[in-house]
Amino acid sequence: MGRGEAVRNRKPTASSTDSAEPLAVRMRVPNKRSRADRIMDELLLHSNLKRADGVTNGLIRPVQPILREKPTTPFIVLPEEARFAPLIKKSRFALDIGGTLVKLVYSTVCERVENSNEPEVLLNFKKFTSIEACLDYIKNNWHDRDADDVIHCTGGGSFKYAELMHSYLGVQVQRTDEMTSLILGCDFLLKNNVDESFTYHHEAIGIEKYQYKPITADLVYPFLLVNIGTGISVLKVDSPTQFQRVGGSSMGGGAFIGLGNLLTQAQSFDELLLMAEKGDHRRCDTLVCDIYGGSYDNLNLPADLIAGSFGKCSRMGKRNARGDQEQASEQDIAKSLLLMISNNIGQMAMLYGMRFAMKRIYFGGFFIRKHPITMRTLSYAINYWSKGNMEALFMKHEGYLGAVGAFLDTKDS
Amino acid sequence: MGRGEAVRNRKPTASSTDSAEPLAVRMRVPNKRSRADRIMDELLLHSNLKRADGVTNGLIRPVQPILREKPTTPFIVLPEEARFAPLIKKSRFALDIGGTLVKLVYSTVCERVENSNEPEVLLNFKKFTSIEACLDYIKNNWHDRDADDVIHCTGGGSFKYAELMHSYLGVQVQRTDEMTSLILGCDFLLKNNVDESFTYHHEAIGIEKYQYKPITADLVYPFLLVNIGTGISVLKVDSPTQFQRVGGSSMGGGAFIGLGNLLTQAQSFDELLLMAEKGDHRRCDTLVCDIYGGSYDNLNLPADLIAGSFGKCSRMGKRNARGDQEQASEQDIAKSLLLMISNNIGQMAMLYGMRFAMKRIYFGGFFIRKHPITMRTLSYAINYWSKGNMEALFMKHEGYLGAVGAFLDTKDS
Repeated sequence: MGRGEAVRNRKPTASSTDSAEPLAVRMRVPNKRSRADRIMDELLLHSNLKRADGVTNGLIRPVQPILREKPTTPFIVLPEEARFAPLIKKSRFALDIGGTLVKLVYSTVCERVENSNEPEVLLNFKKFTSIEACLDYIKNNWHDRDADDVIHCTGGGSFKYAELMHSYLGVQVQRTDEMTSLILGCDFLLKNNVDESFTYHHEAIGIEKYQYKPITADLVYPFLLVNIGTGISVLKVDSPTQFQRVGGSSMGGGAFIGLGNLLTQAQSFDELLLMAEKGDHRRCDTLVCDIYGGSYDNLNLPADLIAGSFGKCSRMGKRNARGDQEQASEQDIAKSLLLMISNNIGQMAMLYGMRFAMKRIYFGGFFIRKHPITMRTLSYAINYWSKGNMEALFMKHEGYLGAVGAFLDTKDS
Repeated sequence: MGRGEAVRNRKPTASSTDSAEPLAVRMRVPNKRSRADRIMDELLLHSNLKRADGVTNGLIRPVQPILREKPTTPFIVLPEEARFAPLIKKSRFALDIGGTLVKLVYSTVCERVENSNEPEVLLNFKKFTSIEACLDYIKNNWHDRDADDVIHCTGGGSFKYAELMHSYLGVQVQRTDEMTSLILGCDFLLKNNVDESFTYHHEAIGIEKYQYKPITADLVYPFLLVNIGTGISVLKVDSPTQFQRVGGSSMGGGAFIGLGNLLTQAQSFDELLLMAEKGDHRRCDTLVCDIYGGSYDNLNLPADLIAGSFGKCSRMGKRNARGDQEQASEQDIAKSLLLMISNNIGQMAMLYGMRFAMKRIYFGGFFIRKHPITMRTLSYAINYWSKGNMEALFMKHEGYLGAVGAFLDTKDS
């Protein structure tokens, strides 16, 4: 791979699903993992990206952090550019401290497997639910740090926790504006990682549901970036340095996990997503057919369209017309919640997209997590309302755009 | 009042709040009623609209329904037009059967108090939470009905319950398309009831918060109508017969009462609204200052802006930095829920309004109920995002647009 060349990945082919061997066996994934995980794992395994857990320990420098568990987000091999050369000698750590999660991006080095003496610099990704756990991890893994080193950071917590980071790690703190780092990270990933973005096609089968959407650097702009964290920011992006936060919403990941916590026993975001997969929202939501007795043809509203989210819960416990006791399970509630929030994000994204005549909407943030229900809902909403004029695009490193941007921002150091 | 003349009402004046006498005494409203009720009652008392409970029994024809309790929605005196003349001899009943509520509009007759021998025809408004209760009410009050009479209806339930209405009441059933009746009703109310629509100004004091917005008939169109029932319909209206449902959402009244029912002990929509009034959403929601430690000046985001609805509930029960136990009450949750849904409706309305370059957005449906928090949120969202280019307008008979439209639709009878 030459200097400055993008990280190339093989596009998944139809043949990858042709084997008669059961999916779980081929992939060596324990059965208890959900189907959504398995499909996406297959996607990752068919990518040319090397996984950090596939690198033998001997090839990782002992002074660098050693990954002790399988990462959930694939690392990236940084292109051989002059700006990344210092990373061969020295690690760099960058944080995006949000309202719910702390996202960490840091460099490690490994010797090349190919015919070259130059070691490769890897970008690694890890998330934490508290700043304390994250700082402990950094303290235990950033061995070569000294008082002149800089920890790069962004996100709301980069203001709030600046002093804590400085005193706990004994390094300088450099802050990057949140929107600037989002765009910087998004720009880098789209231009350098050809299998970064993909579309989701629910009607397709297996791996075909996911279609990589590589884009050449000169066609990246303009686009709409919908970043779904605790809340949502909608950015109209015209170039890496020209962008505007055109809107936002308080109904994002925070609302999903917050309401999910009040309504179910789920102990985490991922557990809540698993619950949603098993639920039937029709026991919570009022559908068009519940009101009209079928579809509403005058308005082209199909019978199974959700007319009112949680509409049936207002009469929970009351007997329905047939005398059955209506009862929605926690799974049903989680499914309704996920659909309500996803539909709403999709519609809002579409409206902002139309307002600025955008063709592509990229979704960032830690809400989607490659979850089929969410991607289907967002894709459907955008396709339906825009009549196919706009495309919903998802990103492999969706949750780390800001952290990558902070990592790249070396203007002051 | 001449034939065809609009029902005139006196605009509230500043002097109406000048008295040193306590508000509750002047208005003879029991103390237990909420402040929101009291202010809106004052608004109604200062209107020239006569209230049905202010008419002595002797003036109401004994064959017509007699109101046994104070109506929550003021009746309307119909203009003296030829099309309404038959109503002096015969009552008319019209229903809008939605996903959650059944709305009834019906005519009664009362002798004129002024110098005239012509009796007045009143339009009365009543809502029910079940079709059965509504049909019982009609059966007991529509005394002069016979097999040739027609009950007018609209809404999803007009399909589902057509046979039930026919057999239970022994009258013909005439259906009007839901969107057609919404627009027909909205058009009639805006053109005939000069104090139908008003804006809400939270920063003003007392009665000044409400400003009537009468509009001359030739300036009514175009406008955006956001009808908030169980779900939401957004209509672009260019004339009484030219309109289009441009969008919708599943996050309306059904989501508020459904989630409210799952999260609180409230027994009704109004109880949930009362709870919300007493709550503090800052114990549930993640504010900008919770993430940034203050305002986010780069983006002009004020410190108290809601960044993530229910964001704090994901850590409910965990101790905060000062060691206090975070605890949100049911009131706090109700407030967060109301703000989340209202903000979202406001933003969506604004986006559709901008898309079609509308100046005025009217809100219909039974969600708002003249509730200050909701009206403030909707007005703020529309004013904030449109930079003052659009106006949020509320309607006294917000919940009855469809029923009024069905009442007026006599094309087939």
